[in-house]
Amino acid sequence: MTFPIAPKSFFASDNFSGTHPRYLEAINKANNGHVMAYGGDAHTKEAISLFQELCDEDVEVLFTFNGTGSNVVALGSLLQPADSVVCTSWAHINVDETGAPERILGIKLHDVDSADAKISPDHLHSVSHALGNVHHVQPGVVSITQATELGTLYTIDEIRAVCDVAHSYGMRVHLDGARIANATAALGGNAETFRALTFGAGVDAVSFGGTKNAMMGAEAVLLKRGVASPRAAFIRKQSTQLPSKMRYASAQFVEALSTGLWIETATHANAMAMRLYELVGDIKSLQLSPPQVNSMYPILAPEVKTQLQDWSFFWDWDEERSQVRWMTSWDTTPEDVEAFAAGIRAQVA
Amino acid sequence: MTFPIAPKSFFASDNFSGTHPRYLEAINKANNGHVMAYGGDAHTKEAISLFQELCDEDVEVLFTFNGTGSNVVALGSLLQPADSVVCTSWAHINVDETGAPERILGIKLHDVDSADAKISPDHLHSVSHALGNVHHVQPGVVSITQATELGTLYTIDEIRAVCDVAHSYGMRVHLDGARIANATAALGGNAETFRALTFGAGVDAVSFGGTKNAMMGAEAVLLKRGVASPRAAFIRKQSTQLPSKMRYASAQFVEALSTGLWIETATHANAMAMRLYELVGDIKSLQLSPPQVNSMYPILAPEVKTQLQDWSFFWDWDEERSQVRWMTSWDTTPEDVEAFAAGIRAQVA
Amino acid sequence: MTFPIAPKSFFASDNFSGTHPRYLEAINKANNGHVMAYGGDAHTKEAISLFQELCDEDVEVLFTFNGTGSNVVALGSLLQPADSVVCTSWAHINVDETGAPERILGIKLHDVDSADAKISPDHLHSVSHALGNVHHVQPGVVSITQATELGTLYTIDEIRAVCDVAHSYGMRVHLDGARIANATAALGGNAETFRALTFGAGVDAVSFGGTKNAMMGAEAVLLKRGVASPRAAFIRKQSTQLPSKMRYASAQFVEALSTGLWIETATHANAMAMRLYELVGDIKSLQLSPPQVNSMYPILAPEVKTQLQDWSFFWDWDEERSQVRWMTSWDTTPEDVEAFAAGIRAQVA
Amino acid sequence: MTFPIAPKSFFASDNFSGTHPRYLEAINKANNGHVMAYGGDAHTKEAISLFQELCDEDVEVLFTFNGTGSNVVALGSLLQPADSVVCTSWAHINVDETGAPERILGIKLHDVDSADAKISPDHLHSVSHALGNVHHVQPGVVSITQATELGTLYTIDEIRAVCDVAHSYGMRVHLDGARIANATAALGGNAETFRALTFGAGVDAVSFGGTKNAMMGAEAVLLKRGVASPRAAFIRKQSTQLPSKMRYASAQFVEALSTGLWIETATHANAMAMRLYELVGDIKSLQLSPPQVNSMYPILAPEVKTQLQDWSFFWDWDEERSQVRWMTSWDTTPEDVEAFAAGIRAQVA
Repeated sequence: MTFPIAPKSFFASDNFSGTHPRYLEAINKANNGHVMAYGGDAHTKEAISLFQELCDEDVEVLFTFNGTGSNVVALGSLLQPADSVVCTSWAHINVDETGAPERILGIKLHDVDSADAKISPDHLHSVSHALGNVHHVQPGVVSITQATELGTLYTIDEIRAVCDVAHSYGMRVHLDGARIANATAALGGNAETFRALTFGAGVDAVSFGGTKNAMMGAEAVLLKRGVASPRAAFIRKQSTQLPSKMRYASAQFVEALSTGLWIETATHANAMAMRLYELVGDIKSLQLSPPQVNSMYPILAPEVKTQLQDWSFFWDWDEERSQVRWMTSWDTTPEDVEAFAAGIRAQVA
Repeated sequence: MTFPIAPKSFFASDNFSGTHPRYLEAINKANNGHVMAYGGDAHTKEAISLFQELCDEDVEVLFTFNGTGSNVVALGSLLQPADSVVCTSWAHINVDETGAPERILGIKLHDVDSADAKISPDHLHSVSHALGNVHHVQPGVVSITQATELGTLYTIDEIRAVCDVAHSYGMRVHLDGARIANATAALGGNAETFRALTFGAGVDAVSFGGTKNAMMGAEAVLLKRGVASPRAAFIRKQSTQLPSKMRYASAQFVEALSTGLWIETATHANAMAMRLYELVGDIKSLQLSPPQVNSMYPILAPEVKTQLQDWSFFWDWDEERSQVRWMTSWDTTPEDVEAFAAGIRAQVA
Repeated sequence: MTFPIAPKSFFASDNFSGTHPRYLEAINKANNGHVMAYGGDAHTKEAISLFQELCDEDVEVLFTFNGTGSNVVALGSLLQPADSVVCTSWAHINVDETGAPERILGIKLHDVDSADAKISPDHLHSVSHALGNVHHVQPGVVSITQATELGTLYTIDEIRAVCDVAHSYGMRVHLDGARIANATAALGGNAETFRALTFGAGVDAVSFGGTKNAMMGAEAVLLKRGVASPRAAFIRKQSTQLPSKMRYASAQFVEALSTGLWIETATHANAMAMRLYELVGDIKSLQLSPPQVNSMYPILAPEVKTQLQDWSFFWDWDEERSQVRWMTSWDTTPEDVEAFAAGIRAQVA
Repeated sequence: MTFPIAPKSFFASDNFSGTHPRYLEAINKANNGHVMAYGGDAHTKEAISLFQELCDEDVEVLFTFNGTGSNVVALGSLLQPADSVVCTSWAHINVDETGAPERILGIKLHDVDSADAKISPDHLHSVSHALGNVHHVQPGVVSITQATELGTLYTIDEIRAVCDVAHSYGMRVHLDGARIANATAALGGNAETFRALTFGAGVDAVSFGGTKNAMMGAEAVLLKRGVASPRAAFIRKQSTQLPSKMRYASAQFVEALSTGLWIETATHANAMAMRLYELVGDIKSLQLSPPQVNSMYPILAPEVKTQLQDWSFFWDWDEERSQVRWMTSWDTTPEDVEAFAAGIRAQVA
């Protein structure tokens, strides 16, 4: 069997893509002589201010290097002694961080089964049986991911319901927002959407992802003051996540938040996933549903899978089910989608 | 008292400076479509190859975000259960990393007193009394810093002597090289110097600093295979130090190592410190010695200190002795030095 | 409804019972002037020797304070950097140790679902997908419990199968033997049984429980030399599990192993559970199976459960299913069993 | 040279001695059928009540297995994120716990030099420079030992001064009281003395030692409520320090506190050390001062030292200075002292 020409971009991950030219321009402009290190510079002050405006809440803003680091800092800032973190078995913190939360924070992740990678109030009722029993770690923090590791979305009401139940048990809520931009784009597409999804719904801490959304190594932790530890900035440094030349991340966030570019790029990535669905969603064997954000999780027969991966690489997702992941990015073009769809159709249909 | 015009650059830290234009150019060039994330790209392969050539040794090369992260990964790759790390009380890992090694690795740092921030064989003989005693942590790794946190240098022979004694006790040796470029520049200025200072002298792991030497968030861990854990790459990820878009750091290291720029910038910084010494070294109250690399540690009367810091910021070093640090960088100009010297002389002399 | 007279002993846990008179006598005899602390005494030497004879293997023997401590020491002695521990979701280390392994060892427990609280080779095949992937912790140790937390038993062949598959993946095997005496009693009742169940089947480390089997705070860790870390004794001390006046635990183990008392007491406890089953096993609503060791896990309607617990206390097991645990001990008498059965029948039947 | 007959007891450590007959009797009496495990028994309730009466303060009382465990639980209950613990370089937590606090709590111990093993307010002023600086761990807890690891004593005023300064910096104070009974005996000898030395002086948490003072594996942590974490009991379990059959430790504490036996035994041990000083204090080369509690730290020439240790074992203390430790216990007799003194005099004088 012969394949058509492969797409220029991969459908492997949004971290295969590069940096948006406007972020690169912001970096180049920020490269201007001496400034205070570790966030004492003007770019950082402006970026923090823009985040506080976005959140419309008294949040502490801490820039970090990567998503795993953000999650560790955010969770570490919410935990009490002997607390555990409740998450789904799909959670990035549970599966894809090589045990960083356990190693750095010394905690148990209490992972619960969930077909759609979402936590429900029932999960919290169930784990609450451990509360007060000295033989069990205490479920103290709930970590939800939006958009989830299976490309699904919580509605605003669902997040509020999780937060309400969590708070009723004395638990705090962390939102892993490595792809919060994609979720924001999908659920309304403006600052109000973001707010409603996060602090407005009762979330106490957000890992705000930039790198997967066209930035160069720029991530942020947003912490509700009065709930998170006043030692959060120390926890960041202790977790190796304090950048010395912070201006380069901050300058990108200034560009992102002051112009709305962070939502534009995510909107585009989402649209490209939907376009791919339009082109291949009819192929029954793939078992696809319309994407909610920028990814789909088709089933591929093993031999088909390998040949397609050799042609244009993408990641396995659930090897036991022969499930893979296709993901679009800020720079995926309609031509990329058409080329990829043609290859799939040549092989699968 | 009036001050002259302040220098354009600060003498606070080499991480107050920006990024060398050639590194920025390398970053811009690397921003070219999709590549494998997490180090699967061609820039990373080339940079690793250049490091292996520089070391002339079978080393594992792991790029990281920052110096604290490098140190955690390097130490974690050398430690056995119940080991401690021996370092001086001045060590960056002991003083300036907010306890990251203890938190992430669960270890004790055994800090020893040293007037010049250097470890000697006698220090190792002394800590060796703990070996084999089940009530004591076992000194398993020695961490030396080159150039040290007091701006001093080990000679090659001194490093070899520490390594020989350490190895005779079964200990491994880590070199914190946040400023290894400055040391290399001062002690010979070429690849052979670097090799002689590190693996040639018996060092088992190096934290190779880039960020303080004109780069943008680029650091490397160099590990002697067979000594360091084969799980080092996992330890990096677990320590939150695996960059997803690694190409940007790697492209800078390609530029640095293939052109020698890393030594050029360090040579310049060292020269600027010497120039400053030539201009103010005669002021007795400062108690200065000629700088070995790019920093000096003068004594300043408290009121003088504050006024100078307000004029052109620099850091306190030992508050109990009213000692401060002046540090030059790759972009410090002769004009900066003259302006700073004039300010010092106006205030102190 | 009225209850008959409650039994003298509880059916709550084997740690509600006291110490066997012969162990108390051993303690009293050992209280004889000064001896070396921390295991340098003659009782400890003899107990170690008896354990090595029992195992017929070159094992390191470390006495500890309690079962959680034993598990932490055993696991810590088997782990490589970035390893996880695979166990069932019922495992004591996962549920009932308040996160001690995660806190002290900095590890992830990878818990797998299992209806009978037993690990099968298929579980290991499934987790093996993570091997070699730098984003995942590496399943390095498998922890099985014998008898399990649901009162079930592995056959010797089942343990061998788990060990073989584990070893084929490079994993080590830990056996949590808090109730290994009950298992040994049930599966043959002599030293050969123990050996066949543990090191003979390929197990690399055993937590050998004494306290639940009539002893006073006496536990042991048995480690296969060459597999476990040579630093195991340091790990014990670092985990706070090195008793200073070790003679009191050691003297009990001498009595246990030299006379076979450890199997006698377990045999009795098992028999009492079987006697209880004979008396109430016909009550359908309890959903009982014949006990394999010294416990049963009946279903009780909530209001019945509370009244029975008020009459003669026992623990809840799975609150979501209204399942409880009834457990016998070395000192449970036939009269206790009859009294307890009468109460159950009065309330339930 | 010939030696006289060796003493029946060693002068090595108070943990070489056995258990006082009255404590053994309490254990035997407590061995009476089934009781609630994990501290739900009547002995534990009574012992807690007696401790609260002794402290005359609202303290949480947690029984533990050993001193290292007590220290870990106490410190863990006082720490905030990114805190360090300030102690002397002689501290048991720093030297003799194989890094347990660092491993289990993930913290740095900030050890300060002190010739008499005592912390002074000046030490705290000095470490306070780190407060508020994000690059440094934050000195959050001060740990003092009473009596110290060099056999010295803080006066009540000295403890109050340390507490006052610590509290003024927002730090909490832990007292490692492995030999608090010896200190209490030396400084007044009644409950008021204990109170004045500890909570009355401002101490926030006490590790109360029993094992070195004639008990069998019985230790307690006393925590000031409102200062210590409400999760302290969970921290105990997570640190592997929750005894299941707690009644045996509790019954001993009931005997100790209700009869004053804990002070009697310590008074005797102190007197025996003083008696030894009376017999050998005139030997200049030993460089002895009158003992404040139950130990002395003589200087012995290496060859003399070895011969004496072979005759009647004792521990080295500072190998670099050829300093050793002689320690008396609750069961050291005047005849033991005379025999030991005769041996010393035969060899040294």
